[in-house]
Amino acid sequence: MKMILIYSGGLDSTVLLHHLVNQNHEVHALTFIYGQTHAREIHAAEHFAQRLRVPHVIERLTLPGTSALQGGCTIPDGHYEAETMRATVVPGRNLVMLSHALAHAAALGADLVSFAAHAGDHAIYPDCRTEFLCCMDQVAQVYHYECVRLDAPFIKLRKEDIVRRGFSMDIELERTWSCYKGGELHCGTCGTCVERREAFQLAGVPDLTTYEG
Amino acid sequence: MKMILIYSGGLDSTVLLHHLVNQNHEVHALTFIYGQTHAREIHAAEHFAQRLRVPHVIERLTLPGTSALQGGCTIPDGHYEAETMRATVVPGRNLVMLSHALAHAAALGADLVSFAAHAGDHAIYPDCRTEFLCCMDQVAQVYHYECVRLDAPFIKLRKEDIVRRGFSMDIELERTWSCYKGGELHCGTCGTCVERREAFQLAGVPDLTTYEG
Repeated sequence: MKMILIYSGGLDSTVLLHHLVNQNHEVHALTFIYGQTHAREIHAAEHFAQRLRVPHVIERLTLPGTSALQGGCTIPDGHYEAETMRATVVPGRNLVMLSHALAHAAALGADLVSFAAHAGDHAIYPDCRTEFLCCMDQVAQVYHYECVRLDAPFIKLRKEDIVRRGFSMDIELERTWSCYKGGELHCGTCGTCVERREAFQLAGVPDLTTYEG
Repeated sequence: MKMILIYSGGLDSTVLLHHLVNQNHEVHALTFIYGQTHAREIHAAEHFAQRLRVPHVIERLTLPGTSALQGGCTIPDGHYEAETMRATVVPGRNLVMLSHALAHAAALGADLVSFAAHAGDHAIYPDCRTEFLCCMDQVAQVYHYECVRLDAPFIKLRKEDIVRRGFSMDIELERTWSCYKGGELHCGTCGTCVERREAFQLAGVPDLTTYEG
């Protein structure tokens, strides 16, 4: 199947990329630059797309708002589920990314857009919830002449399940990028670093990521 | 009501802008630059937004594909409904524009996104059809913390009805821009010029637009 993968270079979408390529799908990776302070994830995306010889488009997006991810305020430390993590919500980000991916699907004649939302995401992000993804799948079926489908194959997996799956596929998980602070190394303390470390622990998989301090 | 209007500077959305402002809504106009050859419509949008003192954001979009509107091939002449006019379809354009408008709605705390699709559009453009707009309205209700609605108040109007409404509001309709060829003047022969001229005739309203030749 010919498909577009929204590919950030993070842990989840890197495992999904390998999963889809292993299934012999024709995957076109699409990465967005939207002013995120953690632009290091884009280097990770380039690394894996080149290694798997997957066509890779990097597209610049303008997104409104003043999320912490775009330098609007300080990235909060602490567990992902805390209320303060709302500061990392970029309004409409996934909606806009999925729409651009669907535009690429129409232009390329792809059948599917794949997206690495997982079971842990929806606590904070409304545009990772099943309800939202179902509505977007309806949109995908009618927005153009050909019907496209939206798929989030990891939507019922926890992050530790994804880590386990990535480990079993022998992926260099330590080269994926999660940290929202965008320093030289993963900070180890922001919400997404906390979630990353926890996932490796719960999965019982050695975490080879180098954290600060 | 606080709302985002997707505002091209064309005839339909200019009449809608005036209609919404007359109803005392707080309108934020949003215009997109997506490589269209008919970028003259943006000057028209600036003119009317300034005149009505409406906040106006002009945002640059990257859209894939090789539509005639983006210089991918020659703009076809002839009536809008002809099969050749499919060359003017930019894949996923309205989907992407509506998504960006919803992102702005979330960032601004607006209640509604308004969009000037009308009854004549759906013959060619799948992303002007009621079916598509209903699905996008469902998306608008769940993509963020607050429920936003999508409205296309002209969806049942024909273009001649919109011309009549604009004339009755004393709008300088000749300063709106329709032509897809993007010359100094409206060409008078491309699909959207044919549709424009016909609408004035059917409305029984004098067409003060200067056409070439």
